[in-house]
Amino acid sequence: MDREEVRSRGWVLKAYAPRGNLTSEHLELRETILDVGSLPENHVAVKALWISVEPYLRAKMYGRDVGLCATQCPLNQVVKWYGIGEVLRSNSPIYGNGDIVLNPFLSLSEYSVAPAEIIHKVDSDAGIPLHEYLGTLGIAGFSAWVGVNEVGQVKAGENVFISAAAGGVGIIAGQLAKIKGCRVIGSAGTDEKVKLLKEELGYDDAFNYKKEKDFDAALSKYFPDGIDVYLDNVGGKMLEAVLNHINNGARIPISGMVSQYTQVWTERDGVRNLLNLVGKEAKMQGFLIRSYLHLLPVFTAEMIGYMKQGKLKTKHKIYEGIEYLLESLNAIFSGINTGKVAIKVL
Amino acid sequence: MDREEVRSRGWVLKAYAPRGNLTSEHLELRETILDVGSLPENHVAVKALWISVEPYLRAKMYGRDVGLCATQCPLNQVVKWYGIGEVLRSNSPIYGNGDIVLNPFLSLSEYSVAPAEIIHKVDSDAGIPLHEYLGTLGIAGFSAWVGVNEVGQVKAGENVFISAAAGGVGIIAGQLAKIKGCRVIGSAGTDEKVKLLKEELGYDDAFNYKKEKDFDAALSKYFPDGIDVYLDNVGGKMLEAVLNHINNGARIPISGMVSQYTQVWTERDGVRNLLNLVGKEAKMQGFLIRSYLHLLPVFTAEMIGYMKQGKLKTKHKIYEGIEYLLESLNAIFSGINTGKVAIKVL
Repeated sequence: MDREEVRSRGWVLKAYAPRGNLTSEHLELRETILDVGSLPENHVAVKALWISVEPYLRAKMYGRDVGLCATQCPLNQVVKWYGIGEVLRSNSPIYGNGDIVLNPFLSLSEYSVAPAEIIHKVDSDAGIPLHEYLGTLGIAGFSAWVGVNEVGQVKAGENVFISAAAGGVGIIAGQLAKIKGCRVIGSAGTDEKVKLLKEELGYDDAFNYKKEKDFDAALSKYFPDGIDVYLDNVGGKMLEAVLNHINNGARIPISGMVSQYTQVWTERDGVRNLLNLVGKEAKMQGFLIRSYLHLLPVFTAEMIGYMKQGKLKTKHKIYEGIEYLLESLNAIFSGINTGKVAIKVL
Repeated sequence: MDREEVRSRGWVLKAYAPRGNLTSEHLELRETILDVGSLPENHVAVKALWISVEPYLRAKMYGRDVGLCATQCPLNQVVKWYGIGEVLRSNSPIYGNGDIVLNPFLSLSEYSVAPAEIIHKVDSDAGIPLHEYLGTLGIAGFSAWVGVNEVGQVKAGENVFISAAAGGVGIIAGQLAKIKGCRVIGSAGTDEKVKLLKEELGYDDAFNYKKEKDFDAALSKYFPDGIDVYLDNVGGKMLEAVLNHINNGARIPISGMVSQYTQVWTERDGVRNLLNLVGKEAKMQGFLIRSYLHLLPVFTAEMIGYMKQGKLKTKHKIYEGIEYLLESLNAIFSGINTGKVAIKVL
């Protein structure tokens, strides 16, 4: 194959940021020339269409362990990440030009060259908007599904609490718990989000945690019969408050702790009442979807079914242009986004 | 039946103690006259022989919820508790004078009158010392067995850490994990206890946590391959340190948190690194043996087998005389006792 050059802008990690927001000191959008013509055997050149933006990406840039399994990005390289792309050139018998692929190791750049075995074809004729493969049918949706069904094992009639309920995982988790017949209450950080949860997403109730000075009083009010399952997306003070309201046999699936990512661990909020786990015979369990991949086909079929039946509403915050990476990622931690955050690469 | 009076000394709760040690301000040994002659139908009069002393007893005297399911003792009554007794008079067809019984609702007193249905006969001819029914074959042993096998699900070759390892639960738990083929390390609060764990109880190693200024460094040294199961009996700072050393899929069964009982929860040590549960896909689970009572026959048979084969050593700290209740209970929290603590009622 002949050499064929494209200009590709990609985010290069210049320095780790152990706390706080990422800035241009840490990440720089740098243009390089990529040869997409003379590809190694069984490789494809992919043009990025969509990039997933989520808390976990932040965890790759700490430069130290933060309690996630995130592989730290090496410095001075384009960050490896995932999204949806279109095959531009292929030197693989499996993929042809124009195929839409999901690539878990796409670079955070406009163009990437990747081994064919690490990408997956997406059925672009299925009538599902492409970015749903990052959200509802992607990591966020799968995290919600695993948290609710596998780790949380919610049962009809149970009282379920979901924090960061208007976030990528929370939006799906709450709807799944409602489908299972639970009473579902969510917390979120703006009145608009609370309205969305109650009026559009079918939550039984919701509250703005920034307006509640006393989490304990709020939980007493919203959970007069206690909490059976708490899908924890935030950790810290809310987790501590919840532990005073759990019922016997409660389950606390933890998919992440968004309130805690931008701090080093010794500065994080300590949870002082873990002894409640004993008296309430309760379980707190962290999970990563990598251990549930055998259930991916079950999940996908179930979710597509719900989507086609109109039982599952989706929400996205879409940034247009790869240059919005910093802004979109920092916005997750400031809590101003609703739903799954993604970048549409122009 | 005719009236027959005995003088019976019993511990009366005068005031709740939300923190710190119990003193004579809270508990008073008061003598009353008990009629053991004219018993109601299906009741027995029991003379106490042994009283179990354990952290959980303390939890009944807080006067508020501490995260255990302990029913608070009413004030100005003899505290209800459990131990081993001998039937003195019986108005029940099931029990005869001289029967040895285990009574979960014995009063903390020399003599009690109890309904026959709440006591259980102990086979005093089985060759097992009676106080073992409170320790190895009692709540402490069963807690250890449930923690190791059911909640911890230890597997041969795993690295197991046990805190308060020379306490009533820890002594049994470590030996059970060794029987299962694990590498077992314990922490305890005196050099004598450390010696006991290493030289008599078969622990692979042990350390004195009061001499380790840096728990993190200690765990790095004793667990170069990380921790698979941590049987938590203490909570607080040790739990936090452990969370930085857990392996993927680690289990943390929590039977209690002895370091935390004498404080109100807002004053307890906060655990700041729960996010590790996510990255390590780990589970922290509190348990109470009441939910595992269906396994009691399996447990008892297994333990008696080990005892007869000489595979299980037991350690007791025995106080002679009911007047030692305060001293023996406070000693548990100051960490000076080794093994199962019990009072022999004279």
